[in-house]
This record gives sequence, structure tokens and C-alpha cells, in this order.
Amino acid sequence: MFDLNTYFASKKQQINAALSEILEDSSISSRIAEAMKYSLMVGGKRIRPILCLAAAEAVGGKADDALRAACSLEMIHTYSLIHDDLPAMDNDDRRRGKPTCHIAFDEATAIFAGDALLTLAFQILSSTEITEEHLASQWLRVIYTIALAAGYKGMLEGQMRDMAAEGASLNLNDLNDIYSFKTGVLIKASVCSGAILGKGSSKQIEQLGIYSKNIGLAYQIIDDILNVEGNSAVTGKAVGTDNIRQKSTYPSIMGIDKSKEIAQKLVNNALQSLDYFDDRSDPLRAIARYIIERKR
Amino acid sequence: MFDLNTYFASKKQQINAALSEILEDSSISSRIAEAMKYSLMVGGKRIRPILCLAAAEAVGGKADDALRAACSLEMIHTYSLIHDDLPAMDNDDRRRGKPTCHIAFDEATAIFAGDALLTLAFQILSSTEITEEHLASQWLRVIYTIALAAGYKGMLEGQMRDMAAEGASLNLNDLNDIYSFKTGVLIKASVCSGAILGKGSSKQIEQLGIYSKNIGLAYQIIDDILNVEGNSAVTGKAVGTDNIRQKSTYPSIMGIDKSKEIAQKLVNNALQSLDYFDDRSDPLRAIARYIIERKR
Repeated sequence: MFDLNTYFASKKQQINAALSEILEDSSISSRIAEAMKYSLMVGGKRIRPILCLAAAEAVGGKADDALRAACSLEMIHTYSLIHDDLPAMDNDDRRRGKPTCHIAFDEATAIFAGDALLTLAFQILSSTEITEEHLASQWLRVIYTIALAAGYKGMLEGQMRDMAAEGASLNLNDLNDIYSFKTGVLIKASVCSGAILGKGSSKQIEQLGIYSKNIGLAYQIIDDILNVEGNSAVTGKAVGTDNIRQKSTYPSIMGIDKSKEIAQKLVNNALQSLDYFDDRSDPLRAIARYIIERKR
Repeated sequence: MFDLNTYFASKKQQINAALSEILEDSSISSRIAEAMKYSLMVGGKRIRPILCLAAAEAVGGKADDALRAACSLEMIHTYSLIHDDLPAMDNDDRRRGKPTCHIAFDEATAIFAGDALLTLAFQILSSTEITEEHLASQWLRVIYTIALAAGYKGMLEGQMRDMAAEGASLNLNDLNDIYSFKTGVLIKASVCSGAILGKGSSKQIEQLGIYSKNIGLAYQIIDDILNVEGNSAVTGKAVGTDNIRQKSTYPSIMGIDKSKEIAQKLVNNALQSLDYFDDRSDPLRAIARYIIERKR
């Protein structure tokens, strides 16, 4: 029987070991490197890199083939959090129960550490030893996919709109757009990168694109719901903050029950998109179910 | 007769046209895109992209083959200036006679615009249509070269050390390190990227590495000298600011005359490293001479 907790634990270990190795491989012991390591190793679910590895496996490839891409995705995710937490942005003092990067270090170091993680992501993506020529094209395609998703037509636009929307009353379309830009596109890039490096077919990559769009939005809706009815001792985050900040969310726009219904429907769509796949996509199926059942 | 001014004008036009085209190719009209365009098109010598194109030509390739790399280098240079100007960093209000990005827009937008330019650089580097498989390996090598130079073991470390050094009395070794990290490595990456994409031999790329290390440091020394005896009407920058800020510079450590002597020696070394090349490296020769003769 496939057990998701075991799978998560094993993949997380693989990813953390690879991240540590990349960061240890530093001839320069600098304050920037310390700050990068601090934020990268402070924890987190590693959901993007795990999706990347699971997608490589789902199309019949090996997780190892996608490990560098997985690490680079976590670096990009971490950089986005560091910059998002800055005083000029969300001005958050704590993240995952620990001081944010600009509190633990200082603002300048936090800006540089974010810049450095973003840059290191692309260094890692381009540093594979190319044993077969056609692999180079695959890596280029992955770099393009990730850069497009992380850039001003993707994640950065989402962070910008999210900030601009604070206090504003959004309709569902606007909210969907923000969620898609802010997290959806990078989740999709995570899944598609894994599928490319696992040597998936166009049809497989297309189906996984549908899968990831659906779980990406479901993930956000469940985040909104946990902010209303989650247990802060379990989630590790304050509850009710969206309401206090008058943030437009799925529950605020359509109520809790309807929000849950939509999240369930999205997860069903995601599962359906995997019909085409064999049991090597069981981890992706389990992740889709986990997204809706999770309590944190 | 080769005329450097004509060469600069023509290459600058080519680079600016390519940059405009990349930025126009945006389905999203966003505040981030406006800020990116503002800082990227505000001007500047375009020395890094011109070096990149000139290096491609020097090894017998076409400038067009390196145009995307040239654009990405200017994007990375511009992002570094935007973040360097931030209140948490150098806190500069003006750059090239115009309000800096965070003044013209706001701090959050400036941080995002910098992030976006860095990300777009890697998108551009990976978005070439690969007509021949071996070209993919070349582009991967260029991405790696540029990411390594721009990251925490390169340019970012230089910016960090430069900031930390403010008010401190440096010795020549420390100053050389700062100059090498802060600008030297990206100038070297500019030249080497062009040489790789121009399909230069290992020997050619190695010689151009020597060339670029020498002109990189010479460039910084002349900057220091212009801050002492330059004409601010010509340089477009305030003169004497290094002295007021008690910054350690070449003139402050070894005097003006000795500094000029060293800069001249570095340029001679650079020219010597080109002995191996034919007259297609005349632009690189002229750039080396320009670096020491420039008044701005």
C-alpha cells in the first residue's frame, strides 16, 4: 500500500540532503550564504520540489533526474518568501515560527540573500553534466519554464497584485488571477519541469499541466479555509488574520461550504487528469487528496 | 579605419532595439513592467553587452549569435543597480541624472522590478530556438557562467563587501577583491559568454578571460580617478564623493599618479592577451584603450 507520509518523509530527506550539499559547496563563507542557508533550511513542506520529483516518476522517469530542478524550485520559493516578508512588502517578523530573514540578519542581507537564491537556482539548473546532447535541450526548456513562471508575467505579478489588493474587495475572477499568478504558475512549473526531466510525452506533460492547475488553486482555497477554521496549534499560523485584514478570500466571497465544494471539485478534476497514467502516478494522486484533507 | 564611436553607436542601437523588443513583447501591462522598462531604458554605456558582442566577433562569430546574452547581461547589471540604490543599501535618489527606481515608483516595485529583470535575463537566455542540438549545450554553459558571476560567489558578494567597507580603511588586496567581485566577474562573464556563443576555442576563451580581468580592474581604477579629477559636467556624476565618504579607493591608497600607472599597465596586459587574435578583435582593443582614456 502506498503511504503518503512515508513518501513525503523520504522525498523531503532527499531534497534537504541535496540542498545542504549545494549550500555546503561554498568556498566563500559569507553573510549572504548564512542568510540563504537560514531561510532555506528553516523548514517548510517542500511541496514544490516533491511535486517535481513525483511528476518525474509519474511519467516513468527517475526522481534523481529531476533533483536539481526540485532544489532550484525550493530556492525560488524561499527567495519569494524572503522578499515578500520585507518591510517594504508584507513587513512580517516571523515565518514558520522563526524570525524572518531581515529580522534574523538585516534588510540589505535579506534582499541579497533572496537575489542570491534566485540566481543560484539558475546556476543549479545549468550546472548538470550533460552526458547526452539532447539532455541539454531538456534543461534549457526547464529553465525557460521556471523563469517564465517565476517572473513578472507569473509569480512576481501575483505578489504585486496580492499586495495591491490588501483592503480591497475582490471578485472571484480577480482572486483566481492572484492565486494563479502568485502560486499556481510556479506549482505548474514544478510539475511540468519534473515531467520534462522524466522524459514525459507531450500528452503526459499536457495532462500534468491540468493536474497542477487544479491542485494549485485547491491548495490556495484550503489555505483560505484553514485561516478561518484551522487550529493554529496545528497550522503553526495565526487563525482569523484574513478576516482582521479584510482580505478577500474564497470563504469571504462564497462562504465556507461552497469553498470546500469547489476545492473538492478541483481535486476531482486533478485526479481525473491522471486517468491516463499508471500506478506510478499514485504519489500525485495521494498529494491531490492530501491537499484537501490537510489540517496544516 | 576602425572608429570606436561609430562602433559603440551601432552596437548600442542594436542592443537597445533588442531590449525594447523583449520588453514590448508583454501581454501584461503591469507596474513591474513599467519599472523594469524605466530602469533598463534610462541609459547607460551598455559596456557589458557591447563587450559580449565584441567578444563573439573577436573569435570569428557573429554579434547576432550573442545578442540575447548581451541583453540578459544588461538586465542583470540594471537589476543590481536598482537593488543597490534601495534605502536599505546605498539609499541613492538619483542615477544617471534621473530618479532611481524606488523614487520614481516605490520600494516594493523597485525590489520586484529588480527581481523581474534578473529572472527575465534567464528566461531570455533559455528561450532561443535551438536549431542544432550542440547549441543547447552552449547556451547552458552561458547560463552557468552568468549565474555564477552574478550570484553570491560573485557580484552579490562584491555589493555586500562594498557596503560593509563604507568608512573602513582597506588595503589594496581587499579593494582588489571588492572590485573583482563587484564588477570584474560580470565583465569577465560578459566577454566569455560572447566568446562561447561566437564558438571560440578554449584557448581563445582563456585569452579573453585574461583580457577581461585586466580591463575590469582598469575600469574601476579609472572610475576612482574620475571621482577625484573628473569634470562632473562630463561624467554626469558628482566629483569628490569618495573622499567625502572616506571611501578607500586606488587614489586614496596609492595616489593619483601610481593609480594611472597601474591602470595603464592593466590595459597593456589586456592588449597583450589579444596578440593571439586577428583584426576581428580590433573593437576589443579599442575598448581597452577607451577605458583608460575615457573622461566619463
